Amino acid sequence: MKLTISKEYLNEAIQHVSKAISSRTTIPILSGIKFDADFSGVTLTASDTDISIQSHIPNEIDNEQVVTLFTKGSVVLPAKFFMEIARKLPSDTIEIEVSNHFHTTIRAGSSEIQMVGLDPEEYPVLPSLEENKVISMASDLLKAMIKQTAFAVSTSETTPILTGVLWTLTDNQLKFTACDRHRLASREVVMEAPSEQQFQNIVISGKTLNELSKILPDQNMLVDIVVSDNQVLFKLNNLLFYSRILDGTYPDMTKVIPQSFQTELVIKAKLLTESIDRAYLLSREEKTNIVKMVMKEDYTIEISSSSTELGKVTETLACEKLTGDLLRISFNSKYMMDALKALDSESIRFRFTGPMSPIIITPEDGTNMLQLILPYRTVN
Amino acid sequence: MKLTISKEYLNEAIQHVSKAISSRTTIPILSGIKFDADFSGVTLTASDTDISIQSHIPNEIDNEQVVTLFTKGSVVLPAKFFMEIARKLPSDTIEIEVSNHFHTTIRAGSSEIQMVGLDPEEYPVLPSLEENKVISMASDLLKAMIKQTAFAVSTSETTPILTGVLWTLTDNQLKFTACDRHRLASREVVMEAPSEQQFQNIVISGKTLNELSKILPDQNMLVDIVVSDNQVLFKLNNLLFYSRILDGTYPDMTKVIPQSFQTELVIKAKLLTESIDRAYLLSREEKTNIVKMVMKEDYTIEISSSSTELGKVTETLACEKLTGDLLRISFNSKYMMDALKALDSESIRFRFTGPMSPIIITPEDGTNMLQLILPYRTVN
Repeated sequence: MKLTISKEYLNEAIQHVSKAISSRTTIPILSGIKFDADFSGVTLTASDTDISIQSHIPNEIDNEQVVTLFTKGSVVLPAKFFMEIARKLPSDTIEIEVSNHFHTTIRAGSSEIQMVGLDPEEYPVLPSLEENKVISMASDLLKAMIKQTAFAVSTSETTPILTGVLWTLTDNQLKFTACDRHRLASREVVMEAPSEQQFQNIVISGKTLNELSKILPDQNMLVDIVVSDNQVLFKLNNLLFYSRILDGTYPDMTKVIPQSFQTELVIKAKLLTESIDRAYLLSREEKTNIVKMVMKEDYTIEISSSSTELGKVTETLACEKLTGDLLRISFNSKYMMDALKALDSESIRFRFTGPMSPIIITPEDGTNMLQLILPYRTVN
Repeated sequence: MKLTISKEYLNEAIQHVSKAISSRTTIPILSGIKFDADFSGVTLTASDTDISIQSHIPNEIDNEQVVTLFTKGSVVLPAKFFMEIARKLPSDTIEIEVSNHFHTTIRAGSSEIQMVGLDPEEYPVLPSLEENKVISMASDLLKAMIKQTAFAVSTSETTPILTGVLWTLTDNQLKFTACDRHRLASREVVMEAPSEQQFQNIVISGKTLNELSKILPDQNMLVDIVVSDNQVLFKLNNLLFYSRILDGTYPDMTKVIPQSFQTELVIKAKLLTESIDRAYLLSREEKTNIVKMVMKEDYTIEISSSSTELGKVTETLACEKLTGDLLRISFNSKYMMDALKALDSESIRFRFTGPMSPIIITPEDGTNMLQLILPYRTVN
């Protein structure tokens, strides 16, 4: 293998695939990035077995010569070192040459780097998926849906299925759900699809979705999503992102969400977020994150938290609407802040069924999203 | 004590004094900030016994009412919590009221915060210095001199005096010197002062100087420096920064610096810095940070480093000047990068007395600065 390649595009591709490099891999070859050079350009591959990412650099981009191939071939190069040095090379064009025993020489301006490459034949082959179920969606919408749900997955490995986000596509609705037993986040969008394309129990690791999110462009670009039995493939311009589907059946969450309510409250999100942020500072000191909400006759709520050592924060906030029974309810302020951040709406609606029942929070801007938080049992 | 105060100026003062708050203090009162309110305004004090910082907020700044005093008084408030919440308060003006037993109420818009204050009588009194020796210098020059030397202090507590920067003012030269047994950094400026104002063995902790540097404004403002037997006081606009002087006698470093040289080399700093940065990436893998420099007949030098596992980096660089014996010399690339960063000159001059003698590096821009690095003994 011998070629010259644009430093800029090489670094962009390295940055993309490096999201799949785990620093704690037990399989030595997976600490490397695989380079395949042929007449179509250069393809980089990285994998940690859960995620695999492939980035293709074509010979030409926008009429600019990006890759010049002299001899085709493949090699696996140590990811961490290659990533760092490639960014710092002194010229815009980099020469890569692989000789016997995968000894690799990189030349750029005054620099010459000798690297010990590994045999690409030892690198695992990426899964090939049957493209029966393919949905297309805008990358910014996919990014938003991940942001609105993935934070609520469980971080505990005791129930692995809850570390993932449940994807369902039924009745022309694509829905993401995440739940860690204390809170739930869900988001739905309309997606027309023939019934054979629909699916029910696709669970993708929250961590994987967050990595995907970092690669997804902010511009409105289409992503093709190929869903198979045990893998999902996200196809972007010159980029393939494979994710394993988590094993197991996701619990039915529909029963958890109350259908009738005793109290309803609408409030400006910014006002509430800033108040809870201040109350959080004290609640955090007690390690419990407990913040109390007390509803008043005069359509205000009082948000408070206290710490025996430091003192007490009390916030009085006017509601836009407050109907039904006036409750005193306590919750985890960290969870509430996460939910409010995900909602991203000027006004938000709370619905309550009682001081010990789930708190339901939805945006007033019409987005089909729901955040649920279980209250704390506290002595009033 | 009761007053209202501008949130902006309060936060600025808190940020300044907080540099003296240690998270690991064993004296409970020192985890607080002392507030003193009288007819001249509000004064904030924080201290970790090594550093004490006092910031004064006058009643009026630029014709703007900043403090309105109702009742004078003092209180000590928990620094960490107060710092965080003061930034997040919802109004531009904040009311602070201290009642019985130092219970403190902070009111801002919809927020009311109750804090458990401490007795200001328990707070240590700041040293009062005799102002016999006072020098004045531009804050940006002081900041630069700290940056050029303080990085080279020892981080080991086995010889505490070497964790400080030596200040001397003799023969109208103010000189800063730092040394950790492997390297030395020094910087000199002309400073006219009567002989009774001069001093010889003032050693200030490198850590303290770095904290001071964060507070020093970038604008060209005068700093008055009061030097006493065991304290140095830096006086800025509305700000006092006290530092303890380290006990002990700083070793004589003049003997370490060679006076005659065998080899001289001048090179573009950027070219060399970038090359060593790349070589560093590999040398770091071996934990030794060893980089080798080999001088060639054709006025070039070769910079190289290698790692048994990863490979080898070789850089060939043209010198602007290379005279004397051609040497092969090895050094710590991390130390060299630090020195090159401190020099901040387009071209730099290396002087060598042999492969095992100190490397002397000076800027070509005329600044009176010197960086010294001891080479490694390596098998060539």
